[in-house]
Amino acid sequence: MNMHFYESLEFVPAGSRPVVACNMVTSLDGKVTLDGNQPASLGSRFDFMTMGIIRSHFDAVLAGGNTIRLHPYYLGVPINLEDVRQQKGLDAQPLTVLLTRSGNLDPKSPVFTKAPRPPIIITSAEGERNMVSFVKANAHIEVIENATPDCIVTLLQQEYQVDRLLLEGGPSVNYQFMESKLLDELFLTLHPSLIGKSTDLTIAMGKNALEQAESISLISSKQHGDELFLRYRIKW
Amino acid sequence: MNMHFYESLEFVPAGSRPVVACNMVTSLDGKVTLDGNQPASLGSRFDFMTMGIIRSHFDAVLAGGNTIRLHPYYLGVPINLEDVRQQKGLDAQPLTVLLTRSGNLDPKSPVFTKAPRPPIIITSAEGERNMVSFVKANAHIEVIENATPDCIVTLLQQEYQVDRLLLEGGPSVNYQFMESKLLDELFLTLHPSLIGKSTDLTIAMGKNALEQAESISLISSKQHGDELFLRYRIKW
Repeated sequence: MNMHFYESLEFVPAGSRPVVACNMVTSLDGKVTLDGNQPASLGSRFDFMTMGIIRSHFDAVLAGGNTIRLHPYYLGVPINLEDVRQQKGLDAQPLTVLLTRSGNLDPKSPVFTKAPRPPIIITSAEGERNMVSFVKANAHIEVIENATPDCIVTLLQQEYQVDRLLLEGGPSVNYQFMESKLLDELFLTLHPSLIGKSTDLTIAMGKNALEQAESISLISSKQHGDELFLRYRIKW
Repeated sequence: MNMHFYESLEFVPAGSRPVVACNMVTSLDGKVTLDGNQPASLGSRFDFMTMGIIRSHFDAVLAGGNTIRLHPYYLGVPINLEDVRQQKGLDAQPLTVLLTRSGNLDPKSPVFTKAPRPPIIITSAEGERNMVSFVKANAHIEVIENATPDCIVTLLQQEYQVDRLLLEGGPSVNYQFMESKLLDELFLTLHPSLIGKSTDLTIAMGKNALEQAESISLISSKQHGDELFLRYRIKW
């Protein structure tokens, strides 16, 4: 097999805090959901493989509660990438980090029943009370009220040795990290489709327009079929 | 000056009807407006120049009422492209076509006061009644109730010899043409910015998810600075 264009990636260190990146696939009209269905319905098999290769560079992969409810899988890498990770001194699988205020998580989800490592759940005190015991027994629960991206990144670095964090949505989670200027890179797959439904979601959604970054540089643009794989570096 | 990558374009004929294309600029999160401000605030000077070059290939350029109220200019080409058009047998300037149900148009807009050709206004009977006399005197008014893209395209072809039509928004106009499967090409500029405001608009917005096209092919991908200029061909 030819080498994938993301197999070997260099990251610019972000000073004392972890490097934070985000990976999303959107339609040409900027949508990440198709008629409210699960995000996985956008993007090709090659994009799905690419998602695993991007994850292979990170210590932890974070998603919000809605995203995990729609797509309830461990945010890991395929087995063939475990060796590659270990050769680079990483754990065989990245840590899955779930961000949920409500604690509303299905204990039957593969993210709990088939997890290669116990996921970390960052939640509120109320969220912890709401959580069923099977979930609590199969995850590390971290209670932080109104967890900001700064808190999250600090916690993951100090308690879980996370030096590279990958975000995989949803739109509200991505927005919070952008608003906090805690996003160094964006991996964007442009899928050749048009959704058009005004209530479908985009990659970052919040109340106010974001303060514009100092610069957003296109590091690479790769084409596979009619899909584009874009990598941007962001300076705030 | 080097040749622009869109200076010479070929279009696949669309049978007996006109070829229809759409040109939009979006942020990386798929937004065409910045905090509700005018569309022109997205995109670089090079993108603005590119918009003119794309227009130079078309007989008519169409926009909806909201778009024209935000950006009240004739949808024309810079003077240096007039000769090029005439050498190709086109009129010096493309026709501007405005689509407005309400007829709510500002007579002081440059689209009326500085128009090289009288714009065509497609409106309802009520819209025509609402329209101020200066606007009526300086435009061709076409009254069609509930004008569908099919009607519009047929009218423009039969009455105004339009063989190539370019759409420039807004999201509702673009959506209607996609829904009617009357969009052959999409020119998409990907501007390196993140907007994030959930109420900002995307390139196509309607009530339902669009029926998926048979194929959407990436014809070309050109980079200028950190902007990407993408051209897609759509088969429904």
